[in-house]
Amino acid sequence: MNELEQALATIARGADEIIKQEDLAERLKSGRPLRIKAGFDPTAPDLHLGHTVLLNKMRQFQDLGHQVIFLIGDITGKIGDPTGKNVTRKPLSREDVLKNAETYASQVYKVLDRERTEVRFNNEWFGKMSAADMIKLAAQHTVARMLERDDFAKRYAAQQPIAIHEFLYPLVQGYDSVALSADVELGGTDQKFNLLMGRALQEHHGQPPQVVLTMPLLEGLDGVHKMSKSLGNYIGIDEPAIDIVTKTMKIDDALMWRWFELLSFEVSLDALARMKREVEGGALNPRDAKLRLARELATRFHDASAAEQAIAGWHAVVRGEGDTSVLPLAEIIVPADGLRLPALLTAAGLAASNSEANRKLKERAVRIDGEVAEDAQRSFGEGFEGVLQIGKRNFARVRLVAG
Amino acid sequence: MNELEQALATIARGADEIIKQEDLAERLKSGRPLRIKAGFDPTAPDLHLGHTVLLNKMRQFQDLGHQVIFLIGDITGKIGDPTGKNVTRKPLSREDVLKNAETYASQVYKVLDRERTEVRFNNEWFGKMSAADMIKLAAQHTVARMLERDDFAKRYAAQQPIAIHEFLYPLVQGYDSVALSADVELGGTDQKFNLLMGRALQEHHGQPPQVVLTMPLLEGLDGVHKMSKSLGNYIGIDEPAIDIVTKTMKIDDALMWRWFELLSFEVSLDALARMKREVEGGALNPRDAKLRLARELATRFHDASAAEQAIAGWHAVVRGEGDTSVLPLAEIIVPADGLRLPALLTAAGLAASNSEANRKLKERAVRIDGEVAEDAQRSFGEGFEGVLQIGKRNFARVRLVAG
Repeated sequence: MNELEQALATIARGADEIIKQEDLAERLKSGRPLRIKAGFDPTAPDLHLGHTVLLNKMRQFQDLGHQVIFLIGDITGKIGDPTGKNVTRKPLSREDVLKNAETYASQVYKVLDRERTEVRFNNEWFGKMSAADMIKLAAQHTVARMLERDDFAKRYAAQQPIAIHEFLYPLVQGYDSVALSADVELGGTDQKFNLLMGRALQEHHGQPPQVVLTMPLLEGLDGVHKMSKSLGNYIGIDEPAIDIVTKTMKIDDALMWRWFELLSFEVSLDALARMKREVEGGALNPRDAKLRLARELATRFHDASAAEQAIAGWHAVVRGEGDTSVLPLAEIIVPADGLRLPALLTAAGLAASNSEANRKLKERAVRIDGEVAEDAQRSFGEGFEGVLQIGKRNFARVRLVAG
Repeated sequence: MNELEQALATIARGADEIIKQEDLAERLKSGRPLRIKAGFDPTAPDLHLGHTVLLNKMRQFQDLGHQVIFLIGDITGKIGDPTGKNVTRKPLSREDVLKNAETYASQVYKVLDRERTEVRFNNEWFGKMSAADMIKLAAQHTVARMLERDDFAKRYAAQQPIAIHEFLYPLVQGYDSVALSADVELGGTDQKFNLLMGRALQEHHGQPPQVVLTMPLLEGLDGVHKMSKSLGNYIGIDEPAIDIVTKTMKIDDALMWRWFELLSFEVSLDALARMKREVEGGALNPRDAKLRLARELATRFHDASAAEQAIAGWHAVVRGEGDTSVLPLAEIIVPADGLRLPALLTAAGLAASNSEANRKLKERAVRIDGEVAEDAQRSFGEGFEGVLQIGKRNFARVRLVAG
């Protein structure tokens, strides 16, 4: 592979779609640093691994010598929820926006190269725009084209209301690409329509249309649903190293390969294919492959020594080989008359119900501090501290406290 | 009828719909001068009788003591045609708008009371609005509601493009009512949707919703199509009195009653019903009723003596009783070898074709200066001047000039 082919392969890794491949190759050939745009909400961020799929792609562009524009859509934030129905979407003040930008900065530079990141706010150009300008912008697209967008089409068909300003936001996002003269815009697959809007508006304004690159949404810990805070199937990038490792070690093998593809910088696609073959041939224990992923992630969001310490803690529980005090500690409120073991396992989130916990007890699958526990009647009171475990991967270090 | 009932009857005369009658009664009872809004295009106006249907209604409100707001939608004019497809809709400058407003003034005060007319421009409030404000405004309505508008529904169904800014204009018009705190908005029946938008937006802004009053579109001289310049079936309010009379005298009786209802101030609805009965009973010649209408219109747009003179001219032709020199004179370009009579009748607009003219000649329906003409071979050259006539109502005073 020559240099261009290598760059294209890196950029294409994990990508869902690139529109258009040949335009991207053309621009890469020019040799100049490309302007890579990615837009972010102006609301207070609390990033998880799902968000880093995009950040990783941005970082890959930076490592190839390109300029990343981290665009904060603060005009949207300034408007809040104009229907007034959503009380949680109050208009953000300038101070709010800057504070949120700081919060972003403290998180995203764990992935991005600060030197090749330009943080911009779209209020820079929209703040100067008049109502008449907005009307002119709205003239550049049709209602029918807008209703082709998947979610709009579904809502319209289901007779769910679509407020007219929702048609304006994609135009706002598209116009950002004009204002920034973006060469490439990155986004999730759910953003494809809006990213294509950038192409249309750039052409309308006499600019060559940006390349659109969509990244898939990362499946969460359950391996099924997209990673999200509300589903609880996430790993936050600010979580302790031990949590990152513990949670990562719980994912299933199929999801592990997916995470490698979308989250690893260290393992090339070739190396990844090799690992897969080794696991399939029995030459590599999938747990060791997963440890490698967990170590890379813990190192990225903390450092190498924190990662090693966390992995040691994980070993202590799963293998029962040593110090468990490095595990995260969850406090559980206990009633004055104590908690029986099944209730404790349920309260610790290890079993879905007391009857499931009882079943696991009968199967001798429950351990406390590494020892098999069988007595469903055993009661635990304030001050108890220990590592509870059901099966190999399902464990928690808890302390009981008074309510 | 008490005073309130009389006012309501005057306002309801000719109206297509009043939404809502009881709100109107409520506001009239308050005794304060109501704010009556009517919106007009910022493009150069050239008003005809069709436009005066609305102006008449405005005048009736003024005569009842209310304040009329003559709103010029110059924000729309400033934007022009944002799709760039319509070259004739160039953005208007401030000077253009003021010049057009002057042109309006020179025409509309033939109907409106200058003292009770407030001329406003919506750029007054939209000029201060930001893109963000426009987005907020757009949030106050849904796509589905907008697509319910008749013309949008038809275009959408026919897969004809609707640009998104077309959804914004009704909101702009609706917001004008908020900015003006309008009590009543008047418009053509084709404006009903936009007028109702004013009600919705006023409610959204905590104002009592305006009363919406729609006036029907006036049928033109043909009695079928709406009066319009492009169809040529109109009487311009700047036309000479003789043209107003001549054209009015050509309309059929059914249309005459309609015009009375929508255009007359002098003939009350009671008097109108009486006239109708008299015509039906043979006690009144419909031509005399029509003369009364023609006289009122000619007087409104000129004065009483001009109206009398014009009617005298009309008598001269139709009745052949006197001076035809008061009739409008049309110049017809004649080739060097002259025009035969059928071609002349066609050129004067009295026959649709030479064969129709020939047929009329054979029917002895053609007159020149009151005398029956039969010779299809007769040729007319430069300098000829006379009154051509086919049947009773179809006549023209022409002069032949060299090309």
